[in-house]
Amino acid sequence: MKLIFKKEKIMNAINIVSRAIPARTTNPILECILFDASSEIKLVANDMDLGIETVVEGEIKEKGKVALDAKLITEIIRKADSNESLIEIESDSSFLTVIKADNSLFRIQGRDGEEFPYLPYIEKNNYISISQFTLKEVVRQTIFSAAVNDNNRMMGGEYIEVKSDKVRFTTLDGHRISIRNINMKEYYGEEKAIVPVRSLNEISKIVSGDNEKEIIIFFSKNHLLFEFDQTKVICGIIDGEYFKIDHMLSKDSETKITINKNELISYIDRSMIFIRENDHKPIILNINESNLNISIKSSFGTMDGDILCHKEGKNLKIAFNPKFLIDALRAIDDEEVDLYFTNAKSPCFIRDDEERYIYLILPVNFIE
Amino acid sequence: MKLIFKKEKIMNAINIVSRAIPARTTNPILECILFDASSEIKLVANDMDLGIETVVEGEIKEKGKVALDAKLITEIIRKADSNESLIEIESDSSFLTVIKADNSLFRIQGRDGEEFPYLPYIEKNNYISISQFTLKEVVRQTIFSAAVNDNNRMMGGEYIEVKSDKVRFTTLDGHRISIRNINMKEYYGEEKAIVPVRSLNEISKIVSGDNEKEIIIFFSKNHLLFEFDQTKVICGIIDGEYFKIDHMLSKDSETKITINKNELISYIDRSMIFIRENDHKPIILNINESNLNISIKSSFGTMDGDILCHKEGKNLKIAFNPKFLIDALRAIDDEEVDLYFTNAKSPCFIRDDEERYIYLILPVNFIE
Repeated sequence: MKLIFKKEKIMNAINIVSRAIPARTTNPILECILFDASSEIKLVANDMDLGIETVVEGEIKEKGKVALDAKLITEIIRKADSNESLIEIESDSSFLTVIKADNSLFRIQGRDGEEFPYLPYIEKNNYISISQFTLKEVVRQTIFSAAVNDNNRMMGGEYIEVKSDKVRFTTLDGHRISIRNINMKEYYGEEKAIVPVRSLNEISKIVSGDNEKEIIIFFSKNHLLFEFDQTKVICGIIDGEYFKIDHMLSKDSETKITINKNELISYIDRSMIFIRENDHKPIILNINESNLNISIKSSFGTMDGDILCHKEGKNLKIAFNPKFLIDALRAIDDEEVDLYFTNAKSPCFIRDDEERYIYLILPVNFIE
Repeated sequence: MKLIFKKEKIMNAINIVSRAIPARTTNPILECILFDASSEIKLVANDMDLGIETVVEGEIKEKGKVALDAKLITEIIRKADSNESLIEIESDSSFLTVIKADNSLFRIQGRDGEEFPYLPYIEKNNYISISQFTLKEVVRQTIFSAAVNDNNRMMGGEYIEVKSDKVRFTTLDGHRISIRNINMKEYYGEEKAIVPVRSLNEISKIVSGDNEKEIIIFFSKNHLLFEFDQTKVICGIIDGEYFKIDHMLSKDSETKITINKNELISYIDRSMIFIRENDHKPIILNINESNLNISIKSSFGTMDGDILCHKEGKNLKIAFNPKFLIDALRAIDDEEVDLYFTNAKSPCFIRDDEERYIYLILPVNFIE
């Protein structure tokens, strides 16, 4: 195999597929990137949960394939002088590989590309198309409330449900639920899948964040396939039925406050000065006639602050893990937010009128 | 005690003195910043190796002193809304302290300021004055070759020697020596001190890097006092006689090369792709008629590259720890550098004609 690329092109492709290089593995071929120049030039990485393939622009002087250690090839190419530098990669029949760049010559031992695990074949029947920007945003706005290390694997997943022209993204742990509803430009059938948030997080880092560029998501029995630009990402999905969340999403409330989001964040943020890891001191929200009082008491000190807000309904005193409130508020772009409460034992909902977003947070007990 | 500050002023003072808050200590008062408003307002921190005192602009409503936990007070003030926010700090006779900022009210337990360890008194007889920029630069350009964790405490120090209108800064470990010579505007006597590089590093982070601003260094038997702007820094010095280095600085050489510094750095940098921690593979420099060949061979692969250079004297093959070469080259601002060699067993010198800088690096053995 003999290939010539511009540094910029090959570096970009390596950065994309490297998202599927496992941090730790006992199988050394998974630490490699496959350079497959059988017809066009494709780079492939596959950690068995996530597989990424991307086409890269370059010149094929001699067809072939070879698997190269991801760390070494990344460093060699990164250290080439400029984006315009020409990189030549040549492997012999024993996969000894010579890389030439800017008067430097590197030799590394590659592996047989035939030993590299193939990406599964995915039927392209059922799909949706959304903008890369929307996918990136929706992942950021929900991913934080998945519980990756929980015994229940499903809590480490993001639930994607398609129904006609709507798609809903949901994550939850035992204490909170985050939901984003997206309206699509076209009508589709019914699809659903639970995607490991680790995979989704890697994908959201590769997509461009461009509102004009689309990503197509194909649904199959055991996998999702994400296709965009010159790249395909295949990820396994979590088997089983997701939690039934609809009956938890009550619309009744006894108290509603409308409040400036950034102000609320900054007060909660200040209360967290007195919280240390493993110290689960709650913050207490005291909703009065015309303001919200926020206070915390820990062995390090106390904080107390008042924020003006618009209130409807009853006064209420309720306590939360401040981190859960902050996570949800930071995921919201609106300047003003509505918080709905029933009583001190029932969940708080942060949602907009059209329910583009719904954040449910359970309160905690507190001692007066 | 009752004080009022602008956030910007108090934050700046806290950032300065915090450099002397120890990362770990069994003495809780050392984790505090002393607020001393006996006459003007001074903030003080002292980890017993390094003491910092700075004067801060603010209003004294009631005189007094209190020691406040550095982490808590830093976070409370950092989280105030804007640089213009007014911060009020009030302590009662039991050192319970109330901090008011932007409608928030914090209560923390302070400690008796009288228990705070005093900074030692330093006689101001012997001193030099140099620009803050020069001090900052000189520390960056030499500090890397001190050996902080060595059994020999002196190797963890920077040797400062004053003689008439010259001051020399030196660090060394067992493998290399870094020297910077500075010409001063005035004439002084003879002074010398071995300063722990940790202290010097903290000081270089506080000084402004402004060429117009001076720093005065006072020499006393057991301490150095650095005075600049509104700040005093006192650090203990290392007792004993520093290594005699002058006889190691031979000016003879058999081979001299003149080479582009950035090009040399980028080739050495590439060779380091094949080096892992605890793997002491050397790079081999092969000096030929008109070029320098750099190569490395490790279990991960090989690198080989040629750089044009101007050579005087004999051809030579010599091996180095690449990190030591890179550290020295990165500390030099010149575009072209001169390297002097005698033979494969003798040190390499990188120095300019006026000896503003001298970097000595010992070679290592290599097998052909």
